[in-house]
Amino acid sequence: MSDFSIHRGQVHHAWERTVKPVATLAPGDEAVLEFQDASGGQLAAGSTSADLEELDFGTLNPVTGPLYVTGAEPGDALVVDILDVQVGEWGWTACLPGFGLLADDFPDPHLRISAIAGGYAELLPGLRVPVVPMIGTIGVAPPEPGPHSVIPPRRWGGNMDIRHIGPGARLILPVGVAGALLSAGDAHAAMGDGEVCGTGVETQATVRLRVDVRKGAAPRTPVIETDPVSARTGAALATTGIGPDLMEAAKDAVRALIDEISARTGLVPQDAYLLASVAADLKISEIVDAPNWVVTAHVERALLNGAQAQT
Amino acid sequence: MSDFSIHRGQVHHAWERTVKPVATLAPGDEAVLEFQDASGGQLAAGSTSADLEELDFGTLNPVTGPLYVTGAEPGDALVVDILDVQVGEWGWTACLPGFGLLADDFPDPHLRISAIAGGYAELLPGLRVPVVPMIGTIGVAPPEPGPHSVIPPRRWGGNMDIRHIGPGARLILPVGVAGALLSAGDAHAAMGDGEVCGTGVETQATVRLRVDVRKGAAPRTPVIETDPVSARTGAALATTGIGPDLMEAAKDAVRALIDEISARTGLVPQDAYLLASVAADLKISEIVDAPNWVVTAHVERALLNGAQAQT
Repeated sequence: MSDFSIHRGQVHHAWERTVKPVATLAPGDEAVLEFQDASGGQLAAGSTSADLEELDFGTLNPVTGPLYVTGAEPGDALVVDILDVQVGEWGWTACLPGFGLLADDFPDPHLRISAIAGGYAELLPGLRVPVVPMIGTIGVAPPEPGPHSVIPPRRWGGNMDIRHIGPGARLILPVGVAGALLSAGDAHAAMGDGEVCGTGVETQATVRLRVDVRKGAAPRTPVIETDPVSARTGAALATTGIGPDLMEAAKDAVRALIDEISARTGLVPQDAYLLASVAADLKISEIVDAPNWVVTAHVERALLNGAQAQT
Repeated sequence: MSDFSIHRGQVHHAWERTVKPVATLAPGDEAVLEFQDASGGQLAAGSTSADLEELDFGTLNPVTGPLYVTGAEPGDALVVDILDVQVGEWGWTACLPGFGLLADDFPDPHLRISAIAGGYAELLPGLRVPVVPMIGTIGVAPPEPGPHSVIPPRRWGGNMDIRHIGPGARLILPVGVAGALLSAGDAHAAMGDGEVCGTGVETQATVRLRVDVRKGAAPRTPVIETDPVSARTGAALATTGIGPDLMEAAKDAVRALIDEISARTGLVPQDAYLLASVAADLKISEIVDAPNWVVTAHVERALLNGAQAQT
């Protein structure tokens, strides 16, 4: 019952204010967007780690769009309600050489394919991660002349990889150019805060959203009103990184989580790293007790039982 | 029914391996510890912002202990089960000049006293924050000759201010000296991940815990097994900080949260800042999409209704 349907061939690979819109929406309109997976179709359900070496990085992370929203002008807020995210039947999670929080520790390509069914993504046999669908990349065209890479996020949104941007959430973006030029892609069936290895459970998706415009109400940076389903609950295992640099602390917390998961389940460190990426949350626990800050990495303990069962 | 009872006069103000133990526990023993509040009794339920200027910083953050645990040796793990945390009838939350994530933005002292009753800390009239008791400071003596300040946390724990260290949680610490020399203090009736203004709802407390020793099992840094109650749930408002430096991103996220809370509720920024400190969670949402990282600050939207009601 949506007003617009944008198919998965209508993608672009850079943020640029000159990209031609694929549809023109009015405030209040709904649209259904098909997303390619973040490999842009280069990986398949039968792919292996060796296939990662052949990836063309120039076509990673395609975004569907852009949508022109009538009445949206620089300085306005674009309100995007995420009404539904239907993920595909499989997803991929990978360590890509040179990418991810612990790129130096994990130099080799490593790929896992998850079957997605019954509300779970099965990362390894018996290791079922609850599906909490989310949109990794969603944003508007920057006003600065482009092209701009789709990999880093910016004030205008983009590849923010915020786990809470899923069904039921409302995203409020600053508008940078006339019509806003909204695009989105990079769906994940599951992801932990931080997406530490650089990928979630990457999958195709069909997304339904509604747009609105608030005149002169651009936020400083994107704002999200989250849905309860994205607030992961349950008894967790948490590890810590402590020190004067948040980045190093985050790395330490993830290293420690990998140690703990491996020790408790028998998973090899590479798999523990992937599990952390799809199911662990990186939190800044303490940022005021100079000179040392605390970053924690949390994973639900019930998940570790599943991991233990499969080894 | 505990084996030991340590009263609130038995405190020390620095970590040091030579501090004389106040009790000797065997693995499996329980102890009840009374905590002073983090001001060491310098603030009272009738204190005002002006009283903050008279604080003696040398006696802030006292810790009760230390407890000598028989059989604990360097390289072992000390396992501490937090069995109960009973908080006091009031608590304080303050902006202290020069302290906190946004010290430059908030140079003036600002104090709020919360009544604690019925499961809530009332930060302002009608603004009731759910009580989720936690222990801000808990650690063991470092092996390096001291004294060491109680303000920064270290590998040996201490002032970690991790919201998840509350009733039902298990804390696993590396042992640095014979007997471990466990001390704790700095209870909070509520705190958000990050404790952004530098204080939670600071309160006296009575804490019951149990100790155990695992030979040769010292973790690299402290590990926590959390209880579900500390996994705050509910629909949230989340703001973002985006950029190449996690610290700046954290500051931006908190600034944006203060803007949003103020705009939505009419709270003055100082109070919005305190509310963020006691009820908002700082999360590292994305740390891999170079060159920009995303830190988010989350607060339950139901709380904002309470804040709106009181203005």
